[in-house]
Amino acid sequence: MTSWLTNTWYVAAWDTEVDTAPLSRTICGVPMLFYRRLDRRIVAMRDACPHRLLPLSLGIREGDSIRCKYHGLKLGPDGVAEEMPLANDPVNRSICVETFITHERHRFVWVWIGERERADPALIPDLWPCSHPDWVFDGDHYAIACDYRLMIDNLMDLTHETHVHSGSIGQPEIMEAPLTCRVDGDRVFLSRWMPDITPPPFWRDALRHDGPVDRWQICQFVLPSAVMIDVGVAPVAAGATLDSHDQGVRGMVVDFMTPETEESHHYFWGMARNFDIHDVGFTARLKRQQGGVFAEDRAVLEQQQASMRANPDLKLRAYSIDQGGVRARQIIARAIAAGKEGPP
Amino acid sequence: MTSWLTNTWYVAAWDTEVDTAPLSRTICGVPMLFYRRLDRRIVAMRDACPHRLLPLSLGIREGDSIRCKYHGLKLGPDGVAEEMPLANDPVNRSICVETFITHERHRFVWVWIGERERADPALIPDLWPCSHPDWVFDGDHYAIACDYRLMIDNLMDLTHETHVHSGSIGQPEIMEAPLTCRVDGDRVFLSRWMPDITPPPFWRDALRHDGPVDRWQICQFVLPSAVMIDVGVAPVAAGATLDSHDQGVRGMVVDFMTPETEESHHYFWGMARNFDIHDVGFTARLKRQQGGVFAEDRAVLEQQQASMRANPDLKLRAYSIDQGGVRARQIIARAIAAGKEGPP
Amino acid sequence: MTSWLTNTWYVAAWDTEVDTAPLSRTICGVPMLFYRRLDRRIVAMRDACPHRLLPLSLGIREGDSIRCKYHGLKLGPDGVAEEMPLANDPVNRSICVETFITHERHRFVWVWIGERERADPALIPDLWPCSHPDWVFDGDHYAIACDYRLMIDNLMDLTHETHVHSGSIGQPEIMEAPLTCRVDGDRVFLSRWMPDITPPPFWRDALRHDGPVDRWQICQFVLPSAVMIDVGVAPVAAGATLDSHDQGVRGMVVDFMTPETEESHHYFWGMARNFDIHDVGFTARLKRQQGGVFAEDRAVLEQQQASMRANPDLKLRAYSIDQGGVRARQIIARAIAAGKEGPP
Repeated sequence: MTSWLTNTWYVAAWDTEVDTAPLSRTICGVPMLFYRRLDRRIVAMRDACPHRLLPLSLGIREGDSIRCKYHGLKLGPDGVAEEMPLANDPVNRSICVETFITHERHRFVWVWIGERERADPALIPDLWPCSHPDWVFDGDHYAIACDYRLMIDNLMDLTHETHVHSGSIGQPEIMEAPLTCRVDGDRVFLSRWMPDITPPPFWRDALRHDGPVDRWQICQFVLPSAVMIDVGVAPVAAGATLDSHDQGVRGMVVDFMTPETEESHHYFWGMARNFDIHDVGFTARLKRQQGGVFAEDRAVLEQQQASMRANPDLKLRAYSIDQGGVRARQIIARAIAAGKEGPP
Repeated sequence: MTSWLTNTWYVAAWDTEVDTAPLSRTICGVPMLFYRRLDRRIVAMRDACPHRLLPLSLGIREGDSIRCKYHGLKLGPDGVAEEMPLANDPVNRSICVETFITHERHRFVWVWIGERERADPALIPDLWPCSHPDWVFDGDHYAIACDYRLMIDNLMDLTHETHVHSGSIGQPEIMEAPLTCRVDGDRVFLSRWMPDITPPPFWRDALRHDGPVDRWQICQFVLPSAVMIDVGVAPVAAGATLDSHDQGVRGMVVDFMTPETEESHHYFWGMARNFDIHDVGFTARLKRQQGGVFAEDRAVLEQQQASMRANPDLKLRAYSIDQGGVRARQIIARAIAAGKEGPP
Repeated sequence: MTSWLTNTWYVAAWDTEVDTAPLSRTICGVPMLFYRRLDRRIVAMRDACPHRLLPLSLGIREGDSIRCKYHGLKLGPDGVAEEMPLANDPVNRSICVETFITHERHRFVWVWIGERERADPALIPDLWPCSHPDWVFDGDHYAIACDYRLMIDNLMDLTHETHVHSGSIGQPEIMEAPLTCRVDGDRVFLSRWMPDITPPPFWRDALRHDGPVDRWQICQFVLPSAVMIDVGVAPVAAGATLDSHDQGVRGMVVDFMTPETEESHHYFWGMARNFDIHDVGFTARLKRQQGGVFAEDRAVLEQQQASMRANPDLKLRAYSIDQGGVRARQIIARAIAAGKEGPP
């Protein structure tokens, strides 16, 4: 029994991470390799040669195929043997490596975990800000040594910003604003509305407006493992509301947590925005800054995981601020129990 | 079943190690943190926030309280919640972290392991030379990767000095002098009397006397895990005896071994003396020199532990020189079996 | 149930590795130490003092004996106590450390694993090129983090040279030449005959002849764990055959794999040759070059072992090129099952 779902799509990589050279990455406990064919379509295979198990990611690309570095078994992009180690040996086409179904959408490479015949791209979570023509989106990949659900907890409430990020993005108002938690099917929404406040420097500059603003943070959990955070400000006079707030500047922090092992995960972080979308320098600075902020989270999360190991008699507790994470974990547990195949 | 006692006091730290900032230390398998209140009294808590288990030692001190670095739960020195992560949430005073009873005595901070209601400072071992007004005492803390009982074995016979410390404090006479072992209740005494010998340089200088001396080494094991070694010399003419030897210069090496895990411990080493007690430079040099001598012991002890793991079919054997360690281990084992609460 | 044989000889070291100072090496899971007596005979003992288990290899050599660095127990070359830690204590001659039977042959120090009374030097595998007067032999020791049988697989087919050593000793002809596999009792022979080819630079220089040659590679597995590879070239006109090929220049690569643990081994590699046998510089260059080639094998083998751990659901598969390794593993497994005592 794993802590993650099967029959679902997980993000394996950013689209920019997968190229001609093989990328090796363990997804849900399974070593996989990813590369692009000449037509740019993506190949995903078990990262172990079916012959003697050497990681295929050490191999040599030939056309759309890959040749193992050890004895030279050549496998096609369908995972089936194309050449045996001994050039003259007849090819045994029952020799093959497990392949995985992938799909590119929303700037990510998704991989299907579960029964192949149930893989349906329609089940990929709708992370629309990542691919909307009026928005720009970029981000990074981080390998984190903790259970992916600890990161969901972290993201489903931003109270921690005050303490963990006291030197960077924290702001006391965040702690003072009331929280609303709402569950809608497999989604959890955790909203914080901060009316008529002085915007922090980042948002003041984004809005190019000096007066008081309404500010919002809406964390949304999406199965199997995404958190999208709708953040932004609008001039008070614009009359924005929690349900309708396109009057000002909006960002969408998009986080996807893919389990690597029971105590580690791949963290895909990106930020989409609907302002200054052609400002490439802004995009690059945002990504770089996030690296610094994120180092603070990583330290906390990895020490939390280590502390769970060192205190096996203690349990995580949930208070009011944790309701978002609690609901998200309930939905994950229910989906695992039901053998559910992901979002409808 | 652990290899250490419960319902007993163990040394957690030197008094100088515990200050305003939290000190994190695992004692008998339990991660703990220690800090001083404004009135200098010591607080000891489980080093895991009751909320999400982040080590509290990463937190921020506020007055006598500590605030978790993750979500800002604030705990008082009694371990009880004083502020919730969300400022407006009512404080739930059933939220608390486990605290531990401590007591300062003999320059050490002691922590009670076991049932709180049985904690009694009268049960703290009487390490009198550490706090006697006519003596001066100082030392250091070392983290050692071996079972604490291997260090007791090491200290309960000083024969090893000849071999392990051949380049520093070893002296052949130590091996040649006969040993007497005596058990008195929960104490073990291992005595070596070296009459009419030329003193080694250290003792000659301490005594400020050039002629022949009587020299002694009396190792004393004290539950749960201390070894005090009465060492010194007196001019032969002074007529010192094993039972009465205050005529010359005396030192008391005080060693306390606190289990960290089954294969590691905290070693508190200090030396008390009744001569040159106001010579601060002498005290500092002694502490520094001991660092070098001790590195030799550490290498041997950690390799011994590694060898025990590598040779699981072999057992430690005891010869005549080991009678002190054997007796001490018997007393420990008996006290564990009896659920005994420490020295009377 | 181990993956290696008992009642057999394994190589413990090169003869040049064992000297006056103790050499510590774990053989078949057992920490051992090796040193030479004054008469150059070799002592092999469990590397753990029978007293408190400190590795004896940290001790001090005294004459033909060794004295433990911890308490000074002195053990003779027969493993029996000669002096107790306390000089005046009567020596208890029942105190002893386990010793192992060794034998020097073919430039190696062999150690007998199993029942002492069955140790017979006649059972040492006949690695004749290592000690033949018309041949010269030298090589090195490498510690490799993989099951010793993966190295046997590697050596029992040289197809991998094309891929693993593409930048150094690989040559496409190796892959194209047909393979013959023959089992003769406990030996496996895997032969490749490459008639009338252009010799690679190494062999052309060795032969001092510029024309076409016949080239051969004959891998021979020998219980418990040796692979000898007969390699060389002869001018086509000389009429060499697979069975008789002393007309040109011959080398014998001698590989011996001694298990250290289930997932690591000692790899003894050497090359014997029957040409330029007095050219010391050639011998040294060969040994140095092999270090570079071998680093390529090591990377592959250790990653193969790691991949086996990461993909516990997958099995090693064997194709035609693996028949040599498959046969060798069958012979090993049969010998283990039969409790067989090595080659006849």
